Amino acid sequence: MIIRVTPGRLGDVASALDKVKVRFREVKVLGEELIVTWPDSIVDERLVKLIDPGAVIINVKTRYQLASRQWRQRSIIDVSGVRVGGDEVVVAAGPCAVEGYEQVRETAEAVKEAGARLLRGGAFKPRTSPYSFQGLGVEGLKILRRVSDEVGLPVVSEVMDTRMVETVASYVDMLQIGARNAQNFDLLREVGRAGKPVLLKRGMGNTVEEWLEAAEYIMLEGNGNVVLCERGIRTFENSTRFTLDLGAVVVAKRLTHLPICVDPSHPAGRREYVIPLALAAIAAGADMLIVEVHPKPWEALSDADQQLTFDMFRELMSKAKAVAYALGRGL
Amino acid sequence: MIIRVTPGRLGDVASALDKVKVRFREVKVLGEELIVTWPDSIVDERLVKLIDPGAVIINVKTRYQLASRQWRQRSIIDVSGVRVGGDEVVVAAGPCAVEGYEQVRETAEAVKEAGARLLRGGAFKPRTSPYSFQGLGVEGLKILRRVSDEVGLPVVSEVMDTRMVETVASYVDMLQIGARNAQNFDLLREVGRAGKPVLLKRGMGNTVEEWLEAAEYIMLEGNGNVVLCERGIRTFENSTRFTLDLGAVVVAKRLTHLPICVDPSHPAGRREYVIPLALAAIAAGADMLIVEVHPKPWEALSDADQQLTFDMFRELMSKAKAVAYALGRGL
Amino acid sequence: MIIRVTPGRLGDVASALDKVKVRFREVKVLGEELIVTWPDSIVDERLVKLIDPGAVIINVKTRYQLASRQWRQRSIIDVSGVRVGGDEVVVAAGPCAVEGYEQVRETAEAVKEAGARLLRGGAFKPRTSPYSFQGLGVEGLKILRRVSDEVGLPVVSEVMDTRMVETVASYVDMLQIGARNAQNFDLLREVGRAGKPVLLKRGMGNTVEEWLEAAEYIMLEGNGNVVLCERGIRTFENSTRFTLDLGAVVVAKRLTHLPICVDPSHPAGRREYVIPLALAAIAAGADMLIVEVHPKPWEALSDADQQLTFDMFRELMSKAKAVAYALGRGL
Amino acid sequence: MIIRVTPGRLGDVASALDKVKVRFREVKVLGEELIVTWPDSIVDERLVKLIDPGAVIINVKTRYQLASRQWRQRSIIDVSGVRVGGDEVVVAAGPCAVEGYEQVRETAEAVKEAGARLLRGGAFKPRTSPYSFQGLGVEGLKILRRVSDEVGLPVVSEVMDTRMVETVASYVDMLQIGARNAQNFDLLREVGRAGKPVLLKRGMGNTVEEWLEAAEYIMLEGNGNVVLCERGIRTFENSTRFTLDLGAVVVAKRLTHLPICVDPSHPAGRREYVIPLALAAIAAGADMLIVEVHPKPWEALSDADQQLTFDMFRELMSKAKAVAYALGRGL
Repeated sequence: MIIRVTPGRLGDVASALDKVKVRFREVKVLGEELIVTWPDSIVDERLVKLIDPGAVIINVKTRYQLASRQWRQRSIIDVSGVRVGGDEVVVAAGPCAVEGYEQVRETAEAVKEAGARLLRGGAFKPRTSPYSFQGLGVEGLKILRRVSDEVGLPVVSEVMDTRMVETVASYVDMLQIGARNAQNFDLLREVGRAGKPVLLKRGMGNTVEEWLEAAEYIMLEGNGNVVLCERGIRTFENSTRFTLDLGAVVVAKRLTHLPICVDPSHPAGRREYVIPLALAAIAAGADMLIVEVHPKPWEALSDADQQLTFDMFRELMSKAKAVAYALGRGL
Repeated sequence: MIIRVTPGRLGDVASALDKVKVRFREVKVLGEELIVTWPDSIVDERLVKLIDPGAVIINVKTRYQLASRQWRQRSIIDVSGVRVGGDEVVVAAGPCAVEGYEQVRETAEAVKEAGARLLRGGAFKPRTSPYSFQGLGVEGLKILRRVSDEVGLPVVSEVMDTRMVETVASYVDMLQIGARNAQNFDLLREVGRAGKPVLLKRGMGNTVEEWLEAAEYIMLEGNGNVVLCERGIRTFENSTRFTLDLGAVVVAKRLTHLPICVDPSHPAGRREYVIPLALAAIAAGADMLIVEVHPKPWEALSDADQQLTFDMFRELMSKAKAVAYALGRGL
Repeated sequence: MIIRVTPGRLGDVASALDKVKVRFREVKVLGEELIVTWPDSIVDERLVKLIDPGAVIINVKTRYQLASRQWRQRSIIDVSGVRVGGDEVVVAAGPCAVEGYEQVRETAEAVKEAGARLLRGGAFKPRTSPYSFQGLGVEGLKILRRVSDEVGLPVVSEVMDTRMVETVASYVDMLQIGARNAQNFDLLREVGRAGKPVLLKRGMGNTVEEWLEAAEYIMLEGNGNVVLCERGIRTFENSTRFTLDLGAVVVAKRLTHLPICVDPSHPAGRREYVIPLALAAIAAGADMLIVEVHPKPWEALSDADQQLTFDMFRELMSKAKAVAYALGRGL
Repeated sequence: MIIRVTPGRLGDVASALDKVKVRFREVKVLGEELIVTWPDSIVDERLVKLIDPGAVIINVKTRYQLASRQWRQRSIIDVSGVRVGGDEVVVAAGPCAVEGYEQVRETAEAVKEAGARLLRGGAFKPRTSPYSFQGLGVEGLKILRRVSDEVGLPVVSEVMDTRMVETVASYVDMLQIGARNAQNFDLLREVGRAGKPVLLKRGMGNTVEEWLEAAEYIMLEGNGNVVLCERGIRTFENSTRFTLDLGAVVVAKRLTHLPICVDPSHPAGRREYVIPLALAAIAAGADMLIVEVHPKPWEALSDADQQLTFDMFRELMSKAKAVAYALGRGL
């Protein structure tokens, strides 16, 4: 149950619920003062109205509550000035991994010129094998920050370790939770407390419902600035690296008020598949894309097969604009 | 190996290969005279050139050969005058199952008016349960034929049983192989001999490669008029009925010269998900859509949840046109 | 709803139901005279009792009825004298495909000596590629019949085409429906009419419920002699050919009275994995195993990697006996 | 490449490799002094032999090296005196979550009496929903330690957060990495440094290869005491909670020297399915089982449907012993 209290009455309602042993949490998210009660807690609606006659009580029927569309139609997330979830589709682009200043700078300029609004780049890389390149770490974050400031693109980068959330948050504009940490609940809570927008990838073995429950962990800590990101799931089909599940995007758009992003690069696995998947994502209703772009993909230290060249990214943007416009959206 | 012989020389080359014990088949498909040799047969290219100096020999590297794009860029399949696989996206629409003349006639007129080029409708229905409506059978085929002629839309309908191929083929313009018969190899061979275009659905547990090998069964019988149809695969995600695999469409477009169709209705499972999935399919490069439409979906004898109303279908067509045009295609 | 009528009263009850427009079918299976009503048909139990006071009415709650354990605890299927589903685990063994008389004869003798009770062998082979060995057809059936008679092992073999059911049934003791035809409903109906026991494989993309509904198609034609066979499903894991789903065996044992068989060869994909999977199947409660064995597996025309040598099969049987005995069963 | 150096020569060989710019790490695991070189590093074997003529150089062909069976046949992991991976199958049992001292004490006594050798219990619980019971935390660890000491069963419990590894390690005998953290690489590294044996669950969307690479992260930090645990994967089948993949157990036994554990409780999802799955796991070759047991499962704060009663656990142990003995193992 979500109780939207009259501004300033949060404390009073909370005190009343405390006395009647209801399990709840006070949450300020997305400009609202809310009380979220535990699904198994019985709340006397009259009691709430007695304390705060202006309170609005919403009986959310899903296992997630703050992430649900039952109490809120649509949220626009502000990432250092870039609005995700509005009429304009936002594209984040950049290298899979930060390899050096020049690489990031060159890429940032190219993708900005082509219309990207956010810069992406990995400093901490979750690699299947410990023998693979693990990222430049804090050094990579410094490069991202510097290029972000110089080029004027807010930057999103992944955080993998609860101990590093504060550090990563101090360098980036948006924190990314990767697919492999999609149910790392301590990390979700920690980014929920960090006060920066979050890009939350769906785990490769997670249902749409679990993905929204992961968002709930973040929001319940008081951070409503969550963008959900579909990046492909594990299925028997192996001609693509993962199976991009655009049905999940369509469903999620109806279940949550949060914006939905699609990463076409990881499910593609090969760069020649990225553009049609990106266009399909926009047609399915995605609010944002996050795309891997590299000056010389074939020399990349990670995901060499799936990163786009600058030329391919320009082609992607040009076609993406056409599709977005056709559906009445900007880009 | 595919040998494109000089017209008229098929017999000579075949005789020569016969003598040297090569395993092969003579196939006339898509206006070409070909000899297809078994992948494990060793063919002396000089021998072939000796008999037919104009022969072109293509060493196809995939497990399927005739379905491969290694010997042919692109095929356009003619379905009683409607060309599938060209620059125009073709939409087939109609009820899941034929329930009566009025229902089909009304639907055919509505979808034609909205821009559909083909009529779909099931007379033989592959139902999970023997207690579900199994279709009207031949009576349904007669209705389809009548409406097809009256309204002027060529019709596609499913055949499930080898014994019925000839009968179904005598009523419809295009034979459909359903997902549950995607590896019913005797049926594939039989429709390969029936001389009508085939809409071949991908099995819900089949890889892209297996789908193309199923097409190979049809083509090897001399029927090259195959349109491949993606309709969702089985995965752990259950918020949609099946997981629409548009990655498979993107991959298949690069592996085969055959046109690719997408069925957005079955993976959706609910009508409110159909339109965005249909648009995504076009953006991913689909050449054709097949969509379930019913005058009163909520009263339908099958798939009541996923059939579109006429109004929804008109909305789909209008948006689909916009997306197709944005990508330089017609519809 | 299943109505177990007093022997001889089938016609009377049917007439009464006919008059009140109930949808039903008269079925004689497993030695019982039954009336099965359609799940959506409303039946007045008092009416039935009026006509046949001895009738037992069972309100089956599942989508399948005759296959359900709600009306019958356990069925033992007799395959030409070999009882499947009793306290003894039954092993069927033999080559993937019939390649010639000597191969089958030699294998039959070896597996019988090791304790196999049934012979398996494919005459019609459902191969992914049309270029693969498709089986010897009727010639293969003749070999199977001859060896079966000579060695004294009833034989099970696959039928793929509705047109061939009668022919195959005339040669074998048990008809096999392969995984690729697990939802070929016309074929299911046809083997339901053939009067021979059926080994029904689960489709690689089918749920347990769909598998039981496939059995319902067979049983509703009056053939209750169905053994269900788990043979692995399609998942993202590719270190084995398919993922053997022993959980499905455990679940099915509780949902149906029909015996459950496990094929460890196909999910294994490699012969060194077959024995532990076979033992696990018995421990999970399987009533039957079907195992591929070949005199010289490395020379086999199909499934060369997964067929067992005679020595391996003997090892399997010796260990299988130990596990079966440990759980209070024979073998 | 793994170089097994002569004891005491680790430093010399390392210095030599350093000079020639080889990427490597010195690792002491499982009583051996090793140098592991990066897969893409070129090592001159003669150089190594020059420095340490007794060195054994193993060219491991897999992406994981220390976890591979290519350099070591079999490892036995000692968990405070309980040897996992030897001829005896080891059973860990206990409640899903620690709910209080009495509950754990009672369970520990019952499972020990029935033959369990390790106690399990969750203090930090990775729950899909933030509204579900999250475990007692450090309070739960204290209860586990106390009961472990009183009853004489070493205890295994999960750690979810890098910041808590030291704390959890100070209370338990074996650290568990849950399925949802199976690719939380920072956590894997941290438990690699904690010096306690690790029970590493396979992620629900991870391949066998990825599971072994996860173990590699732990081992490369110098901790070879890893037991791998299969607990079911995500597939389309939903009659069980997860699909227990015993094929993965069979494969892993051939790929790694590490012991393999199976958790039959989570894939079952319902307690009546646990026993046959547990028996199947032993028959497939599992070295260890981990089973959820609760004094009153129906009142449990988590996993109420799948925890066994004491009676069921006794039945499991009695049958498990019979199956283990039948295969020449103890329990």
